[in-house]
Amino acid sequence: MADEIEDLKALFTAKPRPTSWAERRQRMDEICAIDPPPDDIVFSPATIGAMQAEWSLGPGSDARRVLLYFHGGGYCSGSITSHRGMVGRVGRDAAIRTLAIAYRLAPEAPYPAALEDALAAWRFLRDQGYAPGSIAIGGDSAGGNLTLALMLRLRAMGEALPAAAWLVSPWLDLRMTGKTLDSKAAIDPLISRDYLTGLAAAFLAGHDPGDPVVSPLYADLAGLPPVLIQVGSSETLLDDAVRGAAALGAAEVRTTLEIWPRMIHAWMLWSERLTAGRAASDHAARWLRAAFGEARG
Amino acid sequence: MADEIEDLKALFTAKPRPTSWAERRQRMDEICAIDPPPDDIVFSPATIGAMQAEWSLGPGSDARRVLLYFHGGGYCSGSITSHRGMVGRVGRDAAIRTLAIAYRLAPEAPYPAALEDALAAWRFLRDQGYAPGSIAIGGDSAGGNLTLALMLRLRAMGEALPAAAWLVSPWLDLRMTGKTLDSKAAIDPLISRDYLTGLAAAFLAGHDPGDPVVSPLYADLAGLPPVLIQVGSSETLLDDAVRGAAALGAAEVRTTLEIWPRMIHAWMLWSERLTAGRAASDHAARWLRAAFGEARG
Repeated sequence: MADEIEDLKALFTAKPRPTSWAERRQRMDEICAIDPPPDDIVFSPATIGAMQAEWSLGPGSDARRVLLYFHGGGYCSGSITSHRGMVGRVGRDAAIRTLAIAYRLAPEAPYPAALEDALAAWRFLRDQGYAPGSIAIGGDSAGGNLTLALMLRLRAMGEALPAAAWLVSPWLDLRMTGKTLDSKAAIDPLISRDYLTGLAAAFLAGHDPGDPVVSPLYADLAGLPPVLIQVGSSETLLDDAVRGAAALGAAEVRTTLEIWPRMIHAWMLWSERLTAGRAASDHAARWLRAAFGEARG
Repeated sequence: MADEIEDLKALFTAKPRPTSWAERRQRMDEICAIDPPPDDIVFSPATIGAMQAEWSLGPGSDARRVLLYFHGGGYCSGSITSHRGMVGRVGRDAAIRTLAIAYRLAPEAPYPAALEDALAAWRFLRDQGYAPGSIAIGGDSAGGNLTLALMLRLRAMGEALPAAAWLVSPWLDLRMTGKTLDSKAAIDPLISRDYLTGLAAAFLAGHDPGDPVVSPLYADLAGLPPVLIQVGSSETLLDDAVRGAAALGAAEVRTTLEIWPRMIHAWMLWSERLTAGRAASDHAARWLRAAFGEARG
């Protein structure tokens, strides 16, 4: 049998990462395009102010529940296109709608642009009639960071929180103090300390990386809804996920952490070719269904 | 609505913990007896050499699959009786048989007596015709320690491993370096550093607490089957669970960690009166069913 994950890693390491932002963004769309979205999902465009967004709906899904999704890409790349398959799949399998947004990216739009856009998307869903208990939010990598940041902002404003949050390979510590940044460096084909350092500099534009609004690992996380974190064991960001789960749990948040052997950063992007991608996506979908059931949203 | 967990905590803190081993063992049976086992489960005695053991089987369960269970109690107390309801419930809901064993306790029988007894129970099940893929093993607290210790022993002997392992509130670090031993001390009604120190001294009888055979947190955990860890957020041992999950995941073991808000040490012992006990037990049962399905055991 072919080794799915090693084949994928070989694909990624065959070409050096480009250096310009434009080329990086194009590359990310390209490496995600190798897995087209499942063809039974209907995608339809939306706009939120000046921001592009996209709905998805699978056959038989309940459009009264929605996953608001923030793509990864270090706050500097990633798009609705790159993450279309991953988002559509989990929405279809959770039998809910999804809304993915093209929040503004650094370096053109550093912090807090993405958070403002995430909040605008939340308000858009509320204006569409979605109760907080009918909304889950989620994201991978920087999108996982943004997911927690949005909930902390809502909490600070005294607003109701979503039913649940789903984080994939989240980047939670922009100070980069996780031990796996070094211990997993040799086997992670995508994310290195150097790469993250450049992304953080572009996104922070001088903002303190230890500020909990950009590094939710350092935030008081009390009062958040149930959180599912999924991460691969071959990730330099493994420690961000583990420490995030520890911090959430210690703050009395219902927390589930899944560590998937040999999987790489945001591996669910390639679920068409990764058995463990489909399995993890299926876990997430079932977890979301259960969380909505408990929230009665 | 009454606060289930606070009511339970009040019950436990109303009386000081006895000091003699005999009284402690009696007390543990008593505080667990407040929740009788569900009455649709059939329990039947067994003997493994000189060791007492007990089968359970719920209605409609598949007796060709079994959970081998090691009760908690710091290697110094706990019994088949104390854990009967917790073990029977998860077996019934996973639709499998269970086998609980009364391994020898310290201080009368320090390390490695419990591990020898766990290994004898494993051999007993193999002799009964159970393939490794048809056996899951599990335990709470010291029983979670013993669960990992048995798998590491089997791996060292080159033997096949069980299909899955289930750890509840595991005690994995007899050096007691977890931060939550202090940070959660004020809210944990059951487990304190002083209490654990006495238990460790009795069990170790001079053995090095940093030896991976007694503190599996320090072991090379590669090659183990999927592991589910469940822990309460109000536990001094929360960090043992989190660090255990981190170590397992980093070693490429498929790992799921669930942190349950406000729950206390081995809270599933009181599932008759704790909604979150029944919910966690149900999660464990479904996880075991899925793990057996993937192992085809």
